[in-house]
Amino acid sequence: MNCPVNLKKSDKIEIAHGGGGKMSENLIKEIFIKNFSNNILDIQHDGAVLELYSRRIAYSTDSFVVNPLFFKGGDIGDLAINGTVNDLTACGAEPLFISVGFIIEEGFEIENLKKIAVSMAKAAAKAGVSIVTGDTKVVENGKGDGLYINTSGIGVMKEHIFINSERIKAGDDIIITGPIASHGMCILSERNNLGFEADIKSDTASLNKMIDKVMENIDIHMMRDPTRGGVASSLNEIAEKSNIEICLEDELIPINKDVNSLCELLGFEPLCVANEGVMILFVSPEDSEKTLSLLKCFEEGKNSCKIGTVIKKNVAPIVYSKTIYGSKRVIEMITGEQLPRIC
Amino acid sequence: MNCPVNLKKSDKIEIAHGGGGKMSENLIKEIFIKNFSNNILDIQHDGAVLELYSRRIAYSTDSFVVNPLFFKGGDIGDLAINGTVNDLTACGAEPLFISVGFIIEEGFEIENLKKIAVSMAKAAAKAGVSIVTGDTKVVENGKGDGLYINTSGIGVMKEHIFINSERIKAGDDIIITGPIASHGMCILSERNNLGFEADIKSDTASLNKMIDKVMENIDIHMMRDPTRGGVASSLNEIAEKSNIEICLEDELIPINKDVNSLCELLGFEPLCVANEGVMILFVSPEDSEKTLSLLKCFEEGKNSCKIGTVIKKNVAPIVYSKTIYGSKRVIEMITGEQLPRIC
Repeated sequence: MNCPVNLKKSDKIEIAHGGGGKMSENLIKEIFIKNFSNNILDIQHDGAVLELYSRRIAYSTDSFVVNPLFFKGGDIGDLAINGTVNDLTACGAEPLFISVGFIIEEGFEIENLKKIAVSMAKAAAKAGVSIVTGDTKVVENGKGDGLYINTSGIGVMKEHIFINSERIKAGDDIIITGPIASHGMCILSERNNLGFEADIKSDTASLNKMIDKVMENIDIHMMRDPTRGGVASSLNEIAEKSNIEICLEDELIPINKDVNSLCELLGFEPLCVANEGVMILFVSPEDSEKTLSLLKCFEEGKNSCKIGTVIKKNVAPIVYSKTIYGSKRVIEMITGEQLPRIC
Repeated sequence: MNCPVNLKKSDKIEIAHGGGGKMSENLIKEIFIKNFSNNILDIQHDGAVLELYSRRIAYSTDSFVVNPLFFKGGDIGDLAINGTVNDLTACGAEPLFISVGFIIEEGFEIENLKKIAVSMAKAAAKAGVSIVTGDTKVVENGKGDGLYINTSGIGVMKEHIFINSERIKAGDDIIITGPIASHGMCILSERNNLGFEADIKSDTASLNKMIDKVMENIDIHMMRDPTRGGVASSLNEIAEKSNIEICLEDELIPINKDVNSLCELLGFEPLCVANEGVMILFVSPEDSEKTLSLLKCFEEGKNSCKIGTVIKKNVAPIVYSKTIYGSKRVIEMITGEQLPRIC
């Protein structure tokens, strides 16, 4: 019997192509990496690590299309600064310089643009980075959605710091610097006017100063800030690159009560929901305790905790979590798009 | 008598805020420079010149929202690469690394995305730059216009090269590397389906290799690629920064015949129309001839010529042109927007 449904691969861009999951990954591999391929790009970290004057620098870019532009805990402006600062941080760099590109829709309130600029300036000052170059474009009404912002950033790599998925060892502890899923659920809640009394706030924050303190003292093997696609996508990507088996423990995973309730209510897997102010760290088990005590000195890291372990290396990549009942559930990378335009 | 028209300043973004003229300049000064101010940003060149490891690097960003995406002579892809390459070149740098951020509208043909990626890869290879990091976002149908691309770029500044409007001297010759207004009139013609038989092609091209050759031999005082706002805006900006009087000569200004006819037909001042493959150079008059002969060795520079002179320094800034009848006309920066979304 022939299947009556046309199963041919989509030939048009779908929302899910931007979701940070498998469809995004395939699009990027098939269209971009294939054409632009070079030694640096092919590594596909959060940013690129380049050599300039025999020293290493980190370089990263991100466009921000979040909707709504203003939300509890932040706005598109500080999100755009913090996002690029954290991508550079995840490379093991000290972020220094930021570029900003604005695509503004005709009719956008100048007062709101001002608010967003002030918020970017504050976020940049807090992270200790300078906005050094920029660009402004305006598109006709109906050809945008208020404001899109692209940021790129340059950081200097600290000597003797090598953040690389290949450095992960069997037995490494996996640490997360704060509760998960806050940003994604905040955006969802605000966008749909769900009207929860609960105070679900985005976690947007720059993490460079906190991570800097850890890097001064601890040999971090690998880091990643789990934004689009959440912890699940980040860990699956890392597992695939380093051929490791990752075991999480459900009861260790930190999540705010209200965020968790909303996830349960709406059927979201918190591990797949975006974060904008947490980092995942892979460290040797003997460094675990010290890492946690360093992280906890910072407001952004006060709820840091271990969430799992690297069980084996050089195996078929897998990420799973032990449930509170002792069973295992496989944690997969999201395929489509749970929440479009969360960043 | 009271004026019945409400003259209060616009509180909403207008298309002209993105036009590269006075309204753009004011928006950027009032909202962005005021909030982000620092020593590097405040210089407001095409890109920033930073110090990293006691060496100078150039850093620039540009978003591309051109409509249509494909046009005679190029597409949004090579335009996005060449634009950033030329901005870095105008700083006196050797462009090396490029970041790319895609904002794609849901429903965009993947086949077109492929074409654009191929075109970007070709342009990057031609300019000798590597695309090292990127980002992809998808927005809902109706919230974009097919595709917007942001590029940023890093280049290394050559030693002993200082491109700076303060280095311009009275008597300097002003050289342009090719005919003007081709890109803007090409986009206008294609967008409106004007259906001219005439072969009006965008001039999009990377100029780094050609300019590199000149910099090896000539002390260029100042450079600028006259994109949005055209030659008029670039020269007025430079005149304002260095307090100079610039005299152009109408009959020296190179323009393709068909482009000129279309400008005349539609009432456009060619000096205000965008270019994407020409550079304006300020050099000592004794270097003028050698500069031209070096430029003419390259396809992109074969129509290079002197278009004017710096008459005086430390005066009220002014740009004017001597007409073929011997009179003078003042060349002003455009105020609004002649042609939206030409890059």
